[in-house]
Amino acid sequence: MTPIIIHEVGPRDGLQVEKQIVPTEEKIKWIEGLIEAGVDAIQLGSFVHPGKVPQMADTDKLFTYFNQPGKKSRPVILSGLVLNEKGLDRGMACGVEQFCMGVSASDTHSRKNTGMGTDEAIPRIIAMARKAFEQNNLVQVSVQSAFGCGYEGIVPEQRVLDIVKRFIDAGLRTVSLADTAGHANPRQVERLFGAILALDPAIDCACHFHDTYGLAMANCYAALKTGVKYFESAVAGLGGCPFTAVAGGNVCTEDLVHLFHLLGRRQDIRLDRLIETAKQVSQFFKRDLPGTIYKTGAIPASRPAELTTTS
Amino acid sequence: MTPIIIHEVGPRDGLQVEKQIVPTEEKIKWIEGLIEAGVDAIQLGSFVHPGKVPQMADTDKLFTYFNQPGKKSRPVILSGLVLNEKGLDRGMACGVEQFCMGVSASDTHSRKNTGMGTDEAIPRIIAMARKAFEQNNLVQVSVQSAFGCGYEGIVPEQRVLDIVKRFIDAGLRTVSLADTAGHANPRQVERLFGAILALDPAIDCACHFHDTYGLAMANCYAALKTGVKYFESAVAGLGGCPFTAVAGGNVCTEDLVHLFHLLGRRQDIRLDRLIETAKQVSQFFKRDLPGTIYKTGAIPASRPAELTTTS
Repeated sequence: MTPIIIHEVGPRDGLQVEKQIVPTEEKIKWIEGLIEAGVDAIQLGSFVHPGKVPQMADTDKLFTYFNQPGKKSRPVILSGLVLNEKGLDRGMACGVEQFCMGVSASDTHSRKNTGMGTDEAIPRIIAMARKAFEQNNLVQVSVQSAFGCGYEGIVPEQRVLDIVKRFIDAGLRTVSLADTAGHANPRQVERLFGAILALDPAIDCACHFHDTYGLAMANCYAALKTGVKYFESAVAGLGGCPFTAVAGGNVCTEDLVHLFHLLGRRQDIRLDRLIETAKQVSQFFKRDLPGTIYKTGAIPASRPAELTTTS
Repeated sequence: MTPIIIHEVGPRDGLQVEKQIVPTEEKIKWIEGLIEAGVDAIQLGSFVHPGKVPQMADTDKLFTYFNQPGKKSRPVILSGLVLNEKGLDRGMACGVEQFCMGVSASDTHSRKNTGMGTDEAIPRIIAMARKAFEQNNLVQVSVQSAFGCGYEGIVPEQRVLDIVKRFIDAGLRTVSLADTAGHANPRQVERLFGAILALDPAIDCACHFHDTYGLAMANCYAALKTGVKYFESAVAGLGGCPFTAVAGGNVCTEDLVHLFHLLGRRQDIRLDRLIETAKQVSQFFKRDLPGTIYKTGAIPASRPAELTTTS
């Protein structure tokens, strides 16, 4: 049975669309809750220019804080998103453990996001990933807009697989497919991850779904069954743009962990602590967030009586 | 490939929890929209005592109306839920085409709902179903609380299968499992429907999911893959109790049809007309309903250019 790894991306992908700046102390409180809950990895932020995304301006500070002795109550991997060489240097300077970086399979999305087309971006990202890898960091490379693009619509699956092959050929073994626009459907998820694992069954596949069209949970279940190992999710389902209907949040961490509990998996991750954190986030933004379980509670019979470690 | 049949239950299961009475003319407008959209069956109401569920008081009137010549713009099966012999007689008198009736696998739920325990209810429901069947009506029998119960928690799967076997032995071949409380998870869905189809692959399986815990869409996809044919859903995701967080709506018809479109299935069902109807329902109740697609629109590339009939 493929292990399940929960990679919380709320502090990065969940917050970067929020207009209301979250103070560093507030982020620290939420991240502490996520660590106590027992998620495996947390993406603390993005090494983007602070003028471009002010919400991410304290990313270096968060890493410095949590890298102090005694600040992590449980073992957890702290990851950071890097977009360019300068970001990679910043990340290395403040002790990022896992570097995440990616290329968009949609040329239009790539140009809008980075000023470069996909073909130009691939070798740059591979060079950055190799550099991080050779300095003994964990590295995850991703294909963004892997299941469709808000600008281009359908993204050919072969295009995604060609990028993944380039990653694999460069010795990069942890590959995420990101459904940036929320266009993925579960059959497509099975097909694409199935094709990657057919290339090499030892690749660590990661998935990143947005719930724009209500399909994120079905996509996660399809990914699980296909052999995907890493699940990127955001507490409370953060990440939807609150000012437009057509930008859904990330799949919700506590809802996903709840599903895994029902499947008898990862019952070591504490739902109560995730729910408490989701409530804090919702209270901070003074609005309902997309998550379900933080409002309803878990299915009564699925609540683990005690902390168990039968992951 | 198993065909997909969409059974809209919004006018019954979607409305019966709503306190605000929907005038018959308003229901007719919504039902006309659903018929034009091209769903296969619509549950117009429940033959329950009008004093008990005032929202269902016009059920006979709705059947009489739509059974008039020319009132159905497309072919559609009109179904009705019956709870007892008196309801069955009422349904026969007003021209119900498909009778739906069921037994709860949870003894507590059964007693609260009908005053009878499960063991007492089974032979009564079977007798009613046989009577309807012998008079050349379509009949669907269901097991309610099949995946868990709000009162009893876990419902043993063998208990559900034993009821289904009783139905099959009585010659009843369309069997629905209803997730009354929303406790189902996709693996359980695969197991239970898989077990029924292992008993007899020719049984027509129907599923009925509530989205209380955010799992309804994943459960539908699991059901589809397991060979379930009938999907019971409600326009706009109606059916959640608006006054408590722990009663989720039915899986949303237009969201489910959207998923099927993405899978290349049932593209003859018109999303635009479903979305229009969902908006009317939301406007009537003056609140956001749980459905997604009626707010976001379909994924652009998934919109069928023309009405097609490649179901």
